[in-house]
Amino acid sequence: MFTLWLTGLSGAGKSTLARLAHSALAASGRCVQVLDGDEVRKQLSPDLGFSREDRELNVRRLGYLATLLTRHGIIAIVAAISPYESSRRAVRSIQTTPFVEVFVDCDIAELRRRDPKGLYRRADTASLANFTGVSAPYEPPAHPEVHVRTDFQTREQCLDAILEALRVRGLLQ
Amino acid sequence: MFTLWLTGLSGAGKSTLARLAHSALAASGRCVQVLDGDEVRKQLSPDLGFSREDRELNVRRLGYLATLLTRHGIIAIVAAISPYESSRRAVRSIQTTPFVEVFVDCDIAELRRRDPKGLYRRADTASLANFTGVSAPYEPPAHPEVHVRTDFQTREQCLDAILEALRVRGLLQ
Repeated sequence: MFTLWLTGLSGAGKSTLARLAHSALAASGRCVQVLDGDEVRKQLSPDLGFSREDRELNVRRLGYLATLLTRHGIIAIVAAISPYESSRRAVRSIQTTPFVEVFVDCDIAELRRRDPKGLYRRADTASLANFTGVSAPYEPPAHPEVHVRTDFQTREQCLDAILEALRVRGLLQ
Repeated sequence: MFTLWLTGLSGAGKSTLARLAHSALAASGRCVQVLDGDEVRKQLSPDLGFSREDRELNVRRLGYLATLLTRHGIIAIVAAISPYESSRRAVRSIQTTPFVEVFVDCDIAELRRRDPKGLYRRADTASLANFTGVSAPYEPPAHPEVHVRTDFQTREQCLDAILEALRVRGLLQ
Protein backbone atom coordinates (compact mmCIF):
# COMPACT_ATOMS: atom_id res chain seq x y z
CA MET A 1 0.00 0.00 0.00
CA PHE A 2 1.13 3.54 -0.63
CA THR A 3 0.21 7.18 -1.06
CA LEU A 4 0.67 8.81 -4.44
CA TRP A 5 0.85 12.55 -3.89
CA LEU A 6 0.51 14.84 -6.90
CA THR A 7 1.63 18.41 -6.34
CA GLY A 8 1.77 21.26 -8.84
CA LEU A 9 0.20 24.49 -9.98
CA SER A 10 -3.49 24.88 -10.71
CA GLY A 11 -4.27 23.52 -14.16
CA ALA A 12 -1.03 21.55 -14.48
CA GLY A 13 -2.92 18.27 -14.77
CA LYS A 14 -2.94 16.81 -11.24
CA SER A 15 -6.60 15.76 -11.24
CA THR A 16 -6.37 14.32 -14.74
CA LEU A 17 -3.32 12.25 -13.86
CA ALA A 18 -4.93 11.20 -10.57
CA ARG A 19 -7.94 9.90 -12.51
CA LEU A 20 -5.75 8.07 -15.01
CA ALA A 21 -3.65 6.52 -12.25
CA HIS A 22 -6.84 5.54 -10.44
CA SER A 23 -8.17 3.79 -13.54
CA ALA A 24 -4.90 1.99 -14.19
CA LEU A 25 -4.57 0.76 -10.61
CA ALA A 26 -8.24 -0.10 -10.12
CA ALA A 27 -8.25 -2.03 -13.42
CA SER A 28 -5.85 -4.51 -11.86
CA GLY A 29 -8.21 -5.07 -8.93
CA ARG A 30 -6.63 -2.70 -6.45
CA CYS A 31 -8.64 -0.63 -4.01
CA VAL A 32 -7.95 3.03 -4.75
CA GLN A 33 -9.32 6.33 -3.48
CA VAL A 34 -8.63 9.68 -5.08
CA LEU A 35 -8.55 12.58 -2.66
CA ASP A 36 -8.88 15.76 -4.66
CA GLY A 37 -7.71 18.82 -2.79
CA ASP A 38 -10.60 20.99 -3.94
CA GLU A 39 -13.20 18.34 -3.20
CA VAL A 40 -11.86 17.50 0.26
CA ARG A 41 -11.59 21.19 1.04
CA LYS A 42 -15.27 21.57 0.20
CA GLN A 43 -16.22 18.62 2.39
CA LEU A 44 -13.89 19.02 5.34
CA SER A 45 -12.70 22.58 5.29
CA PRO A 46 -15.41 24.97 4.13
CA ASP A 47 -14.09 27.27 6.85
CA LEU A 48 -10.60 27.53 5.36
CA GLY A 49 -9.26 30.24 3.09
CA PHE A 50 -6.03 30.38 1.10
CA SER A 51 -3.62 31.87 3.57
CA ARG A 52 -0.44 29.89 4.15
CA GLU A 53 -1.79 28.63 7.47
CA ASP A 54 -5.10 27.50 5.97
CA ARG A 55 -3.44 25.80 3.04
CA GLU A 56 -1.10 23.93 5.35
CA LEU A 57 -4.04 22.79 7.46
CA ASN A 58 -5.88 21.49 4.40
CA VAL A 59 -2.79 19.60 3.29
CA ARG A 60 -2.36 18.10 6.76
CA ARG A 61 -5.98 16.92 6.61
CA LEU A 62 -5.37 15.27 3.26
CA GLY A 63 -2.33 13.56 4.74
CA TYR A 64 -4.37 12.26 7.66
CA LEU A 65 -7.05 10.89 5.32
CA ALA A 66 -4.35 9.15 3.30
CA THR A 67 -3.01 7.36 6.41
CA LEU A 68 -6.54 6.31 7.33
CA LEU A 69 -6.98 4.68 3.92
CA THR A 70 -3.57 3.10 3.39
CA ARG A 71 -3.79 1.54 6.86
CA HIS A 72 -6.63 -0.56 5.48
CA GLY A 73 -4.96 -1.53 2.25
CA ILE A 74 -6.43 1.23 0.11
CA ILE A 75 -4.15 3.15 -2.23
CA ALA A 76 -4.54 6.89 -1.63
CA ILE A 77 -4.01 9.21 -4.57
CA VAL A 78 -3.93 12.84 -3.50
CA ALA A 79 -4.16 15.64 -6.06
CA ALA A 80 -3.55 18.97 -4.35
CA ILE A 81 -1.51 22.06 -5.16
CA SER A 82 0.22 21.64 -1.76
CA PRO A 83 2.57 24.53 -2.47
CA TYR A 84 4.78 24.39 0.63
CA GLU A 85 7.72 22.04 0.97
CA SER A 86 7.31 22.05 4.76
CA SER A 87 3.76 20.73 4.68
CA ARG A 88 4.57 18.12 2.04
CA ARG A 89 7.44 16.99 4.25
CA ALA A 90 5.14 16.88 7.29
CA VAL A 91 2.59 14.82 5.41
CA ARG A 92 5.26 12.42 4.19
CA SER A 93 6.56 11.98 7.72
CA ILE A 94 3.25 10.74 9.16
CA GLN A 95 2.69 8.03 6.55
CA THR A 96 3.12 4.44 7.66
CA THR A 97 3.37 3.20 4.08
CA PRO A 98 5.48 4.43 1.13
CA PHE A 99 4.94 7.97 -0.06
CA VAL A 100 5.49 8.68 -3.74
CA GLU A 101 5.57 12.38 -4.56
CA VAL A 102 4.84 13.38 -8.13
CA PHE A 103 5.75 16.87 -9.24
CA VAL A 104 3.21 17.71 -11.95
CA ASP A 105 5.17 20.44 -13.62
CA CYS A 106 4.13 22.82 -16.38
CA ASP A 107 5.50 26.17 -17.44
CA ILE A 108 3.31 28.97 -16.15
CA ALA A 109 3.19 30.60 -19.61
CA GLU A 110 1.52 27.42 -20.86
CA LEU A 111 -0.88 27.40 -17.89
CA ARG A 112 -1.82 31.00 -18.68
CA ARG A 113 -2.45 29.95 -22.27
CA ARG A 114 -4.68 26.97 -21.28
CA ASP A 115 -6.51 28.61 -18.35
CA PRO A 116 -9.84 26.78 -18.94
CA LYS A 117 -11.48 28.35 -15.89
CA GLY A 118 -10.02 31.84 -16.42
CA LEU A 119 -8.32 31.67 -13.04
CA TYR A 120 -4.89 32.90 -14.17
CA ARG A 121 -6.53 35.79 -15.97
CA ARG A 122 -8.41 36.72 -12.81
CA ALA A 123 -5.26 36.32 -10.72
CA ASP A 124 -3.26 38.48 -13.12
CA THR A 125 -5.81 41.25 -12.91
CA ALA A 126 -5.84 40.88 -9.11
CA SER A 127 -9.51 39.94 -8.95
CA LEU A 128 -8.39 36.62 -7.46
CA ALA A 129 -6.04 36.92 -4.47
CA ASN A 130 -3.55 34.41 -3.08
CA PHE A 131 -3.36 32.48 -6.31
CA THR A 132 -0.49 30.01 -6.36
CA GLY A 133 2.21 30.84 -8.89
CA VAL A 134 0.94 34.40 -9.35
CA SER A 135 0.26 36.05 -6.01
CA ALA A 136 1.13 33.17 -3.69
CA PRO A 137 4.31 31.08 -3.70
CA TYR A 138 4.81 27.59 -5.06
CA GLU A 139 7.86 25.79 -3.75
CA PRO A 140 8.80 23.11 -6.31
CA PRO A 141 9.73 19.77 -4.76
CA ALA A 142 13.50 19.41 -4.53
CA HIS A 143 13.51 15.61 -4.72
CA PRO A 144 10.18 14.25 -5.90
CA GLU A 145 10.02 10.54 -6.69
CA VAL A 146 8.57 11.45 -10.09
CA HIS A 147 8.81 14.64 -12.13
CA VAL A 148 6.48 14.94 -15.10
CA ARG A 149 6.22 17.87 -17.52
CA THR A 150 2.69 18.16 -18.84
CA ASP A 151 3.78 20.86 -21.29
CA PHE A 152 6.17 18.46 -23.04
CA GLN A 153 4.87 14.99 -22.30
CA THR A 154 1.55 13.42 -23.27
CA ARG A 155 -0.82 12.20 -20.57
CA GLU A 156 0.15 8.65 -21.39
CA GLN A 157 3.85 9.40 -20.99
CA CYS A 158 3.20 11.06 -17.63
CA LEU A 159 1.10 8.13 -16.47
CA ASP A 160 3.78 5.68 -17.60
CA ALA A 161 6.41 7.58 -15.63
CA ILE A 162 4.23 7.37 -12.52
CA LEU A 163 3.49 3.68 -12.92
CA GLU A 164 7.16 2.97 -13.59
CA ALA A 165 8.12 4.77 -10.36
CA LEU A 166 5.64 2.54 -8.50
CA ARG A 167 6.96 -0.56 -10.25
CA VAL A 168 10.64 0.04 -9.44
CA ARG A 169 9.64 0.49 -5.79
CA GLY A 170 7.91 -2.86 -5.79
CA LEU A 171 4.52 -1.26 -5.22
CA LEU A 172 2.75 -2.94 -8.12
CA GLN A 173 3.39 -6.52 -7.15
CA MET B 1 -20.66 -2.39 5.25
CA PHE B 2 -22.04 0.12 7.71
CA THR B 3 -21.38 2.97 10.10
CA LEU B 4 -21.88 2.42 13.81
CA TRP B 5 -22.34 5.82 15.41
CA LEU B 6 -22.08 6.10 19.19
CA THR B 7 -23.48 9.29 20.67
CA GLY B 8 -23.78 10.28 24.32
CA LEU B 9 -22.39 12.44 27.09
CA SER B 10 -18.74 12.64 28.00
CA GLY B 11 -17.78 9.65 30.15
CA ALA B 12 -20.85 7.60 29.24
CA GLY B 13 -18.73 4.84 27.71
CA LYS B 14 -18.68 5.58 23.98
CA SER B 15 -14.95 4.99 23.46
CA THR B 16 -15.00 1.84 25.58
CA LEU B 17 -17.92 0.37 23.65
CA ALA B 18 -16.31 1.44 20.36
CA ARG B 19 -13.17 -0.49 21.31
CA LEU B 20 -15.16 -3.56 22.34
CA ALA B 21 -17.21 -3.47 19.14
CA HIS B 22 -14.00 -3.04 17.15
CA SER B 23 -12.48 -6.12 18.80
CA ALA B 24 -15.61 -8.20 18.29
CA LEU B 25 -15.92 -7.28 14.61
CA ALA B 26 -12.21 -7.45 13.81
CA ALA B 27 -11.99 -10.87 15.47
CA SER B 28 -14.25 -12.26 12.76
CA GLY B 29 -11.92 -10.93 10.07
CA ARG B 30 -13.72 -7.71 9.27
CA CYS B 31 -11.92 -4.50 8.41
CA VAL B 32 -12.86 -1.92 11.04
CA GLN B 33 -11.75 1.61 11.84
CA VAL B 34 -12.66 3.48 15.01
CA LEU B 35 -13.00 7.22 14.59
CA ASP B 36 -12.85 8.77 18.01
CA GLY B 37 -14.28 12.27 18.13
CA ASP B 38 -11.53 13.65 20.36
CA GLU B 39 -8.77 12.04 18.35
CA VAL B 40 -10.11 13.13 14.97
CA ARG B 41 -10.67 16.62 16.33
CA LYS B 42 -7.01 16.76 17.34
CA GLN B 43 -5.90 15.56 13.88
CA LEU B 44 -8.33 17.35 11.60
CA SER B 45 -9.76 20.20 13.58
CA PRO B 46 -7.22 21.75 15.93
CA ASP B 47 -8.75 25.05 14.91
CA LEU B 48 -12.21 24.20 16.21
CA GLY B 49 -13.69 25.09 19.58
CA PHE B 50 -16.85 23.89 21.25
CA SER B 51 -19.44 26.31 19.95
CA ARG B 52 -22.48 24.76 18.31
CA GLU B 53 -21.10 25.64 14.89
CA ASP B 54 -17.70 24.12 15.57
CA ARG B 55 -19.18 20.97 17.04
CA GLU B 56 -21.42 20.52 14.03
CA LEU B 57 -18.46 20.95 11.71
CA ASN B 58 -16.44 18.32 13.58
CA VAL B 59 -19.37 15.91 13.40
CA ARG B 60 -19.77 16.54 9.67
CA ARG B 61 -16.09 15.75 9.21
CA LEU B 62 -16.49 12.49 11.07
CA GLY B 63 -19.44 11.66 8.84
CA TYR B 64 -17.38 12.32 5.73
CA LEU B 65 -14.55 10.10 6.97
CA ALA B 66 -17.08 7.35 7.64
CA THR B 67 -18.36 7.48 4.04
CA LEU B 68 -14.78 7.36 2.76
CA LEU B 69 -14.13 4.17 4.71
CA THR B 70 -17.43 2.31 4.21
CA ARG B 71 -17.16 2.95 0.46
CA HIS B 72 -14.14 0.65 0.51
CA GLY B 73 -15.66 -2.06 2.64
CA ILE B 74 -14.35 -0.84 5.98
CA ILE B 75 -16.72 -0.70 8.93
CA ALA B 76 -16.61 2.76 10.51
CA ILE B 77 -17.23 3.03 14.24
CA VAL B 78 -17.61 6.62 15.34
CA ALA B 79 -17.51 7.57 19.02
CA ALA B 80 -18.39 11.22 19.42
CA ILE B 81 -20.64 13.20 21.77
CA SER B 82 -22.40 14.59 18.68
CA PRO B 83 -24.95 16.43 20.82
CA TYR B 84 -27.20 17.87 18.11
CA GLU B 85 -29.97 15.90 16.46
CA SER B 86 -29.65 18.03 13.32
CA SER B 87 -26.01 17.15 12.74
CA ARG B 88 -26.58 13.46 13.47
CA ARG B 89 -29.41 13.54 10.94
CA ALA B 90 -27.18 15.29 8.40
CA VAL B 91 -24.45 12.72 8.88
CA ARG B 92 -26.91 9.86 8.51
CA SER B 93 -28.26 11.35 5.30
CA ILE B 94 -24.91 11.35 3.49
CA GLN B 95 -24.09 7.69 4.17
CA THR B 96 -24.30 5.31 1.25
CA THR B 97 -24.35 2.27 3.56
CA PRO B 98 -26.49 1.51 6.64
CA PHE B 99 -26.18 3.84 9.61
CA VAL B 100 -26.69 2.35 13.06
CA GLU B 101 -27.01 4.96 15.78
CA VAL B 102 -26.27 3.89 19.33
CA PHE B 103 -27.41 6.10 22.15
CA VAL B 104 -24.86 5.50 24.93
CA ASP B 105 -26.99 6.69 27.80
CA CYS B 106 -26.06 7.23 31.43
CA ASP B 107 -27.63 9.33 34.14
CA ILE B 108 -25.67 12.51 34.65
CA ALA B 109 -25.59 11.97 38.43
CA GLU B 110 -23.66 8.77 37.76
CA LEU B 111 -21.34 10.57 35.32
CA ARG B 112 -20.62 13.18 37.98
CA ARG B 113 -19.84 10.37 40.41
CA ARG B 114 -17.43 8.60 37.99
CA ASP B 115 -15.79 11.72 36.51
CA PRO B 116 -12.33 10.14 36.04
CA LYS B 117 -10.89 13.24 34.41
CA GLY B 118 -12.58 15.73 36.73
CA LEU B 119 -14.34 17.34 33.78
CA TYR B 120 -17.81 17.48 35.34
CA ARG B 121 -16.35 19.01 38.48
CA ARG B 122 -14.60 21.65 36.39
CA ALA B 123 -17.76 22.26 34.36
CA ASP B 124 -19.87 22.58 37.51
CA THR B 125 -17.52 25.19 38.92
CA ALA B 126 -17.55 26.98 35.56
CA SER B 127 -13.81 26.55 34.96
CA LEU B 128 -14.76 24.53 31.87
CA ALA B 129 -17.17 26.26 29.50
CA ASN B 130 -19.50 24.76 26.89
CA PHE B 131 -19.50 21.34 28.52
CA THR B 132 -22.18 19.07 27.14
CA GLY B 133 -24.87 18.16 29.66
CA VAL B 134 -23.86 20.96 32.03
CA SER B 135 -23.36 24.23 30.18
CA ALA B 136 -24.09 23.05 26.62
CA PRO B 137 -27.10 21.07 25.42
CA TYR B 138 -27.33 17.37 24.62
CA GLU B 139 -30.26 16.39 22.46
CA PRO B 140 -30.96 12.69 23.10
CA PRO B 141 -31.68 10.70 19.93
CA ALA B 142 -35.42 10.25 19.48
CA HIS B 143 -35.16 7.00 17.54
CA PRO B 144 -31.71 5.45 17.85
CA GLU B 145 -31.27 1.95 16.45
CA VAL B 146 -29.81 0.92 19.82
CA HIS B 147 -30.23 2.43 23.28
CA VAL B 148 -27.86 1.21 25.96
CA ARG B 149 -27.72 2.32 29.59
CA THR B 150 -24.21 2.11 30.94
CA ASP B 151 -25.43 2.92 34.45
CA PHE B 152 -27.62 -0.23 34.53
CA GLN B 153 -26.07 -2.59 32.02
CA THR B 154 -22.64 -4.20 32.02
CA ARG B 155 -20.26 -3.54 29.15
CA GLU B 156 -20.94 -7.03 27.84
CA GLN B 157 -24.70 -6.45 27.86
CA CYS B 158 -24.24 -3.17 26.00
CA LEU B 159 -21.96 -4.81 23.44
CA ASP B 160 -24.44 -7.67 22.99
CA ALA B 161 -27.25 -5.18 22.33
CA ILE B 162 -25.13 -3.49 19.68
CA LEU B 163 -24.11 -6.72 17.98
CA GLU B 164 -27.72 -7.95 18.07
CA ALA B 165 -28.87 -4.75 16.36
CA LEU B 166 -26.30 -5.37 13.63
CA ARG B 167 -27.34 -9.01 13.34
CA VAL B 168 -31.07 -8.34 12.92
CA ARG B 169 -30.21 -5.88 10.17
CA GLY B 170 -28.24 -8.52 8.33
CA LEU B 171 -24.99 -6.64 8.82
CA LEU B 172 -23.02 -9.51 10.35
CA GLN B 173 -23.41 -12.00 7.52
